[in-house]
Amino acid sequence: MTAAAQGPVTAAVLVIGDEILSGRTKDKNIGYIADYLTAIGIDLREVRVVPDVEEEIVAAVNALRARYDYLFTTGGIGPTHDDITADSVAKAFGVGIGEDPRAISMLLERIRPEDLNEARRRMARIPHGAELIANPVSKAPGFRIGNVIVMAGVPAIMQAMLDEVAPTLSTGRRMLSATIRADAKEGDIAAPLKAIADAHPDVSIGSYPFSEDGRFNTNIVVRSRDAERLEAVRAAVAEMVARLHAAP
Amino acid sequence: MTAAAQGPVTAAVLVIGDEILSGRTKDKNIGYIADYLTAIGIDLREVRVVPDVEEEIVAAVNALRARYDYLFTTGGIGPTHDDITADSVAKAFGVGIGEDPRAISMLLERIRPEDLNEARRRMARIPHGAELIANPVSKAPGFRIGNVIVMAGVPAIMQAMLDEVAPTLSTGRRMLSATIRADAKEGDIAAPLKAIADAHPDVSIGSYPFSEDGRFNTNIVVRSRDAERLEAVRAAVAEMVARLHAAP
Repeated sequence: MTAAAQGPVTAAVLVIGDEILSGRTKDKNIGYIADYLTAIGIDLREVRVVPDVEEEIVAAVNALRARYDYLFTTGGIGPTHDDITADSVAKAFGVGIGEDPRAISMLLERIRPEDLNEARRRMARIPHGAELIANPVSKAPGFRIGNVIVMAGVPAIMQAMLDEVAPTLSTGRRMLSATIRADAKEGDIAAPLKAIADAHPDVSIGSYPFSEDGRFNTNIVVRSRDAERLEAVRAAVAEMVARLHAAP
Repeated sequence: MTAAAQGPVTAAVLVIGDEILSGRTKDKNIGYIADYLTAIGIDLREVRVVPDVEEEIVAAVNALRARYDYLFTTGGIGPTHDDITADSVAKAFGVGIGEDPRAISMLLERIRPEDLNEARRRMARIPHGAELIANPVSKAPGFRIGNVIVMAGVPAIMQAMLDEVAPTLSTGRRMLSATIRADAKEGDIAAPLKAIADAHPDVSIGSYPFSEDGRFNTNIVVRSRDAERLEAVRAAVAEMVARLHAAP
């Protein structure tokens, strides 16, 4: 990682693909990227899913790249007619796009020259000014232009591309978290939990209900970039929960 | 379902919750709602995930409700301090919010009067003018205001609420689909597939790579609301694939 930035570093994810919106494919990338960015000190602030429609992709890319430090896109960079992400990103930036000789070289590491047909050459179409992101899985590269990182939709390839690009990103102080299992329903801890939250406005406290063996339960998650503040609030929550269970 | 609408009926989903963006919770609602809406004849056109921040929720609700026939939200309607969806939706609509006696009655079906504390009463805060959506799982209702349907984030509860509200929705002609397994790499079918797509601009053809036993393969998905058009294009794709494998 490059040196930690002063303030939080923010990001958005844009998932591109009709197949996610139709339900045919269940997205596995959002949760993976969320975990990954949290672990390296980048705050994921927004996710959008849009169809394979140029104007929708262009509008979402421009809205999100203006608002966050990084935008990660997944999907739409293969060789078929419905893969329009590279062209849409070029349009969003107002730059040209063409066959990139570096990308052709990468494709030729895996594809025999006689198999490098017109469709496969489409995977070497890269917006002008972009840097390539190596794809150790199937060679066809992703790319980065400005603060936008364009990756494949196939999870194994997306994950490899994220590993490639991560060392080049600015990161902030990592968000730390602690989870306290309440063994109580949300409605029974809400008031004392709100009192703790009000007393510690600098620390984020989330309450997440779940059911187990047919009974509702709650996980309380405390989050802070400051280890001492985290521990202070974690201890306050744990004490509150213990008090609750000790009550007659 | 009410009578089928003339044109397609469109929808967006707004997932509300810090826990999805941090990666702590993996969303299971987007894929479920996508499948569900496709099956009843509503086109899911966009998904957004935003944090538990009022101005973000208000902005997303207003952007999405203006653009699509329906907006489904998940998350943020529990009893704790971080559950701010109902207040945010009221703000988005510019209406008041208060304790709804119908919602209190629903809560009392499950909660003893002496346990109906201030926190649990928060779950009865409903924007003025909203209709309630029954919650057969844990009683605390969702609600519908205008074209916005506000549901819980816990999957079992969200699913029950979707079942409650679905019969009241307008639906369009169902999108039909057929999948052809190519047993070929995308790059080998892209050109003939594009020719079929160009010849049938009224039918959507998607190409989805996957890997199996370490080899890349492709599913081709044909989608149309017209069963005859679907079958014509499905047959054309299947014939193309057969021709490809028959080639020397």
